[in-house]
Amino acid sequence: MNADLLARFHGVIPAGGVGTRLWPLSRASAPKFLHDLTGSGSTLIRATYDRLVPLAGERIMVVTGRAHRGAVVSQLPELCDEDLVLEPEPRDSAAAIGLAAAILYRRDPSIIMGSFAADQVIEPVEVFQAALSEAIHTAATGKIVTIGIHPTHPSTGFGYIQTGEPLQVPNAPSARGVVQFVEKPDEDTARKYLASGGFLWNAGMFVAPVSLMLEHLEANEPALHAGLMKIADAWETGQREEVMREVWADLPKTAIDYAVAEPAAAAGDVAVIPGVFNWDDVGDFAAIGRLNKASADQGIINLGGESVRVYADSATGVVYSDRPRVVALVGIEDVVVVDTADALLVTTKEHAQKVKQTVEQLKADGATEVL
Amino acid sequence: MNADLLARFHGVIPAGGVGTRLWPLSRASAPKFLHDLTGSGSTLIRATYDRLVPLAGERIMVVTGRAHRGAVVSQLPELCDEDLVLEPEPRDSAAAIGLAAAILYRRDPSIIMGSFAADQVIEPVEVFQAALSEAIHTAATGKIVTIGIHPTHPSTGFGYIQTGEPLQVPNAPSARGVVQFVEKPDEDTARKYLASGGFLWNAGMFVAPVSLMLEHLEANEPALHAGLMKIADAWETGQREEVMREVWADLPKTAIDYAVAEPAAAAGDVAVIPGVFNWDDVGDFAAIGRLNKASADQGIINLGGESVRVYADSATGVVYSDRPRVVALVGIEDVVVVDTADALLVTTKEHAQKVKQTVEQLKADGATEVL
Repeated sequence: MNADLLARFHGVIPAGGVGTRLWPLSRASAPKFLHDLTGSGSTLIRATYDRLVPLAGERIMVVTGRAHRGAVVSQLPELCDEDLVLEPEPRDSAAAIGLAAAILYRRDPSIIMGSFAADQVIEPVEVFQAALSEAIHTAATGKIVTIGIHPTHPSTGFGYIQTGEPLQVPNAPSARGVVQFVEKPDEDTARKYLASGGFLWNAGMFVAPVSLMLEHLEANEPALHAGLMKIADAWETGQREEVMREVWADLPKTAIDYAVAEPAAAAGDVAVIPGVFNWDDVGDFAAIGRLNKASADQGIINLGGESVRVYADSATGVVYSDRPRVVALVGIEDVVVVDTADALLVTTKEHAQKVKQTVEQLKADGATEVL
Repeated sequence: MNADLLARFHGVIPAGGVGTRLWPLSRASAPKFLHDLTGSGSTLIRATYDRLVPLAGERIMVVTGRAHRGAVVSQLPELCDEDLVLEPEPRDSAAAIGLAAAILYRRDPSIIMGSFAADQVIEPVEVFQAALSEAIHTAATGKIVTIGIHPTHPSTGFGYIQTGEPLQVPNAPSARGVVQFVEKPDEDTARKYLASGGFLWNAGMFVAPVSLMLEHLEANEPALHAGLMKIADAWETGQREEVMREVWADLPKTAIDYAVAEPAAAAGDVAVIPGVFNWDDVGDFAAIGRLNKASADQGIINLGGESVRVYADSATGVVYSDRPRVVALVGIEDVVVVDTADALLVTTKEHAQKVKQTVEQLKADGATEVL
């Protein structure tokens, strides 16, 4: 890649989202991105960072909750203070990604940002990086570029991107226009999308000139834009904390899809690079089964490490325990056991999605201390 | 009952047996009889004791492992020192019950003992007590009397008693002779037994003059008999501990069935009272489901008490936890979750019997610290 273009690229990692369906492993105090869910030896946020380094070097910003400062810094010791954006409280993705855009814009208005969630699993990384390179080249032509995922099944859990005509961008042979973003479909619609070949999953990956991101944000969410610019103006001054405290809590809460991506697509400003890598958002415990293939061959995936001794008799599944103990599983296929100090979950992979309802029930009962 | 006859009766409770199929709830340091497995508010040993009191008063002896002294005394504070027999190590049922017989014989050779395991569930207790009264009257005619259980299904897990002719004992209208004791049968044989109507389950309940017990023990296991009499001679002297230590470890290990019941039956010395009460030996976690009917109606039996908050979504079963926590069960029918400090078991009622194999595996691996 052209060195000048590459020098303009800056990674952004919004690290939010508890991962409710992975409770009680993932929880408010230790969300999904702080766990190694694939047996790779890296937490998801560390792997996300490492994936960006070949293109961004150390020009990577992380936006996360204030409570996770210590954990994030210990995972990413190379992160400098200016690139660690701490939210006093979650205000949805438009605020998080928009603030990164605003801070980077103040640093250098020519920056091309690439925003990638901290809790996705991608491989091979080289295929991702090739797509990212195409995305950067396409963004440089004045587009907001999303990397869309080739759907492998008619998922009703993701939004979709309807692809348009090829764009003929130099060094980005697979770039296409985007007709529209569509919401999570019902199953029939999802089947049609899959059969048509003209739809990709929206994984929330956006590569764009920060100036263009902010332009659309200003047009669609002027109050949010104004607030974020005010924080950005104070970012590299002594007033950072003070202005953050004053402005953040009143920012409109909305998703980046509504605030930027969808209206920008309607304006013809969005392109897409189809991503042909394997992608998983580790949405539930069934995903952990898929992503730990090596140990899955032995029937039991032990996420608890060596101090957890698992005895399985006619049983398969996933086990996590945060303390040394014996876990005996007898006669259950695809069982999921998650054992933490204050909460124990027992389910099966088939019912893994339903964990969300249990968390909602706990919330409704005020049992927030275990969430 | 005749007051003189009643005064001769002395209860004996052998409290041994870990209850392997109830691991890790029941274990070497806290065996089955020390738990309240039915939600009654009483441990099994306390309920066993209380069942005997209307006939035996405080003339009840407990034979248990030395390690359980504290727990047993706290469950049975009325137990006097002479009636607490502590085994330095388990030496099977003939040694345990035979020692009780020998000690009682030295106390008064006319005593009729009634031996009942500490970990069985019986109701209504009045029906049991009526059977016991018949058994005492029958024993007084010079018989070893067992109370046999009316089989409710063709169990392959129990030995059987083949009943003989009615015995015409005054005050014991249901007393019958015993043709033979038979070992645990295969399923076909068990079906035949059930269909014939002439077989009862052997629950190991024996009521007999201590003199007759010892007579048969001496004939069949002379070395065991001699050793037990030696201990009995020292029992109410200062040498109790010393003699116990000297003799116990070398006693032959055998079951009371082989050492006394079977040969006595062959000699025509055994009678049986059919027990028409409900009886359960709480053999596994499926039994705990059966025995906790009230809470089972709500789908989940919580043996952990109020500090354990169970959330069930499309799930039923049995939960035990020894510490305050949330237990969430999603999408598993008849699940069994047993959560202790060092061991966690997850199975289903259907596979409850298999827990024994897991315990054997743990033993083979040398993981005795969790057994």
